[in-house]
Amino acid sequence: MNGAESLMRTLVDGGVEVIFANPGTTETHMVGAMGAVPQLRGVLTVFEGVATGAADGYARIAGKPAATLLHLGPGFAYGLTNLHNSRRANSPVVSIVGDHPTYHNVYDPPLTSDIAALGGWLRGSVRRPENAAGTGVDAAATLAAALESPGQIATVIMPADVAWSDGGLVAAPVAVRPAPPVAQDVIARIAEVIRSGEATALVIGGPAVREAGLCAASRIAAATGVRVLQELYSNRLEHGAGLPSFPRMGFYPDQGAKQLAGVGHVITAGAKAPVSFFAYPDKPSCLVPENAQTHVLAEVGQDAVAALVQLADLVAPDTAPTVNKPHRPALPSGPLTLQSWTDVVAALLPDRAIVIDETVSSGTALAAATEGAPRHDVLMQCGGAMGDGMPLAVGAAVAAPDRPVVALESDGCALYTVTALWTQAREQLNVTTVILDNHAYAILRAEWAYFTRSPGPENPDSNPMFDLTNPTIDYVKLAEGFGVPASRATTAEELAEQFSRAIAEPGPHLIQAVIPAAA
Amino acid sequence: MNGAESLMRTLVDGGVEVIFANPGTTETHMVGAMGAVPQLRGVLTVFEGVATGAADGYARIAGKPAATLLHLGPGFAYGLTNLHNSRRANSPVVSIVGDHPTYHNVYDPPLTSDIAALGGWLRGSVRRPENAAGTGVDAAATLAAALESPGQIATVIMPADVAWSDGGLVAAPVAVRPAPPVAQDVIARIAEVIRSGEATALVIGGPAVREAGLCAASRIAAATGVRVLQELYSNRLEHGAGLPSFPRMGFYPDQGAKQLAGVGHVITAGAKAPVSFFAYPDKPSCLVPENAQTHVLAEVGQDAVAALVQLADLVAPDTAPTVNKPHRPALPSGPLTLQSWTDVVAALLPDRAIVIDETVSSGTALAAATEGAPRHDVLMQCGGAMGDGMPLAVGAAVAAPDRPVVALESDGCALYTVTALWTQAREQLNVTTVILDNHAYAILRAEWAYFTRSPGPENPDSNPMFDLTNPTIDYVKLAEGFGVPASRATTAEELAEQFSRAIAEPGPHLIQAVIPAAA
Repeated sequence: MNGAESLMRTLVDGGVEVIFANPGTTETHMVGAMGAVPQLRGVLTVFEGVATGAADGYARIAGKPAATLLHLGPGFAYGLTNLHNSRRANSPVVSIVGDHPTYHNVYDPPLTSDIAALGGWLRGSVRRPENAAGTGVDAAATLAAALESPGQIATVIMPADVAWSDGGLVAAPVAVRPAPPVAQDVIARIAEVIRSGEATALVIGGPAVREAGLCAASRIAAATGVRVLQELYSNRLEHGAGLPSFPRMGFYPDQGAKQLAGVGHVITAGAKAPVSFFAYPDKPSCLVPENAQTHVLAEVGQDAVAALVQLADLVAPDTAPTVNKPHRPALPSGPLTLQSWTDVVAALLPDRAIVIDETVSSGTALAAATEGAPRHDVLMQCGGAMGDGMPLAVGAAVAAPDRPVVALESDGCALYTVTALWTQAREQLNVTTVILDNHAYAILRAEWAYFTRSPGPENPDSNPMFDLTNPTIDYVKLAEGFGVPASRATTAEELAEQFSRAIAEPGPHLIQAVIPAAA
Repeated sequence: MNGAESLMRTLVDGGVEVIFANPGTTETHMVGAMGAVPQLRGVLTVFEGVATGAADGYARIAGKPAATLLHLGPGFAYGLTNLHNSRRANSPVVSIVGDHPTYHNVYDPPLTSDIAALGGWLRGSVRRPENAAGTGVDAAATLAAALESPGQIATVIMPADVAWSDGGLVAAPVAVRPAPPVAQDVIARIAEVIRSGEATALVIGGPAVREAGLCAASRIAAATGVRVLQELYSNRLEHGAGLPSFPRMGFYPDQGAKQLAGVGHVITAGAKAPVSFFAYPDKPSCLVPENAQTHVLAEVGQDAVAALVQLADLVAPDTAPTVNKPHRPALPSGPLTLQSWTDVVAALLPDRAIVIDETVSSGTALAAATEGAPRHDVLMQCGGAMGDGMPLAVGAAVAAPDRPVVALESDGCALYTVTALWTQAREQLNVTTVILDNHAYAILRAEWAYFTRSPGPENPDSNPMFDLTNPTIDYVKLAEGFGVPASRATTAEELAEQFSRAIAEPGPHLIQAVIPAAA
């Protein structure tokens, strides 16, 4: 067995089932090994950012480790941005990167670069097997690092000679420590804070925005009046009828200040203390009011759900959670607006959907409109880097082929990784993409306007750098070019008809929903 | 004047005229400053890899420093791969990356990352102004670093508070040392090597593959029998009628071994000693024969052209260069093949064209077919990372609006940065893109076959990881989706007709040339 095959077999033994790939010559033997290990499914992407975003989506929905296979430093570099998003989502991803043999790198051929530096940028483990015999051990350690709570991007750099050499040994999986529990006295102390009766906010995130955590937080809120907020971007939010829901932390410091106004205590569980997404002149970075105390119920990576449940049992033993009743907006009519597109999707969202939310400024009405829709998962882009949504949809659909995936994409975001559509077509994934097309980086116009209220750019008019007209982009043709059936909607009626049809048919579809910027 | 404006004005004073951009919120004040400095042209791209590849193409053709403006670490990361290609092309690029204020990064908001680590990966200078007053000095130093021979990617990280704060001071350009000359005794010693009469090869690269260097090398070859080879990938090759031309170093070690068989001396000028592009079991990395001596006439970055001219004056004082006579292939007919598509382009190549060669395995006949075509520049992807070609075309066309740009793109490569077409449409650039569509990563199939002659993957059949059918991609629709007129050619006659029309009309065009893999 060569080193490449020992890598693949070790990963399979540790729970890896899918590799999202864009390989090159240095990965030839790893491609060969993937073919030799029938438990592995290779999913080809034609751009590395799709592979890495797909791994992120897969990990979030499958609850299993994801893997990518990329081509030396430059291929890894193309994939880095969505690995940054994955890192911020705490998704467990094994990033396999091929390399020249070390004896070849010393000649500095064109593709040589410091691959480990890129792995280090992701703040995860970076390993580089020295020979075939040691590859299994490094692979098992890399997988364990990826899986360690809360999850990380762990890189294994495979020199081509290590991959092609015989003597590979499969290593047994390394036991992974579960999320560390929160100490009882911490929970008891925070119960005392809540019982003090002072105004208190509870900010939940990570695994705490799924059913068990949401219900515990809801019980606490109902019994004590604690103000519950959820982090701005969640890796997997459970949402809809039968679940509690809470406001998301605001994007702007003013919103955050309003949400936390008057509180004397901010408790965090599975989320960091809230911080403004961007910085602005004379605005605070930290959103916790100056005279409020922060209390960490559960660090990111600790078992926040169990801690919340225990806290609820202390302060709200007899209180039931408050959950959303099933309700849907009526189907609207007329031209598409930010409200009407949202109402169409909320009215027609199928059962057990996975919603990808990369709506940016077009999605402000989404959370409220879908509160009473059939229960669904919402995957958000967690690292702030545009272009995660369509790849997330690929990965989610691979992980859950029996569930409908609805990718809600702002037009600016869609362009970074538009080739995800090709992989959706190739794998016949059940993804319905709705492009929310306002022909602009509308978020940047909003930011410009926000800055002009403080010292900032003089010119308040629209700037060519934020404009996506001239030419406007025909997403229907793009989708068809990649093999995905597509249509265009300019009214709510058209969107409803097209969305219903797309959801009903197997395989991928795309709808270009044209929403004038002022709507 | 705020820090952002002092940055822009300093760069303008140092010769920067164009910024290829995909900005975000942290770059708001820099976008504002671009608007306030009328000498600057902002070119918007919808993916950072397009901005960075365009900067590369611009620098190569304009002979001026290029600049990019990207959004924090994750935006920079999307652009890194083509900056790697730019680095290998020795293109002078100032990479401007916005950042949160340092006081904000300490809270680790979602977009925070170690931007300097990414700049370091490119092995160039990385600076981070601490305040508005110091920004001009850092900008001038960054520009000088980018321009220092042979050229590098120099990064300036602009914290948002530095950009928005008043007190910016414009700094005067820093004098840049010209390419250091080669010492006379080095040239004299190498002249002795040549005069020894032993079999000798001369490998030229960088600026030495333009007219003056090519002519000097040709004189040396004609007078002394020295075997001249040009490096595998050139940043700007001058090619065609009236110029000498030489074989390129081979991609595979076997080719290189054949090219250098029997030589006792290898002289390099503006190129490194030849090395195999990839490594293979039991094949050499270094292509210089074991018993041959390597002599460096000019290191990369030294004045290789002057050294070659001086060497030619010593060993070939009375010899004229041997140049290609004007000649064109006849226009072929019938289905497209690797030879016939090339002959069509060579037969119809317009005057003063800039040819982007990202043909990979489809372009093997190109150099010979275009030897007698009207003189043109050829820009190759120098770092081995796919996806540089279409962005290079953007930058070249911005640099030389009066020249026709012909981008020859393998279908695999085209997909990484296909959104370059949108910028081509927006700027109405005179680019004719020919997609060489064999529905495959044919190079990877060739590599697989090459490996199977030595210990390697067992299965010689095509592998799904190398296959771009299912679905095949409709590049005509993709181009039209981005606003670029497009057509499809399956015969030489169709390609000739469509290519002629595309060249004749202003603005961008795309032709999908369907070339069966076996052709």
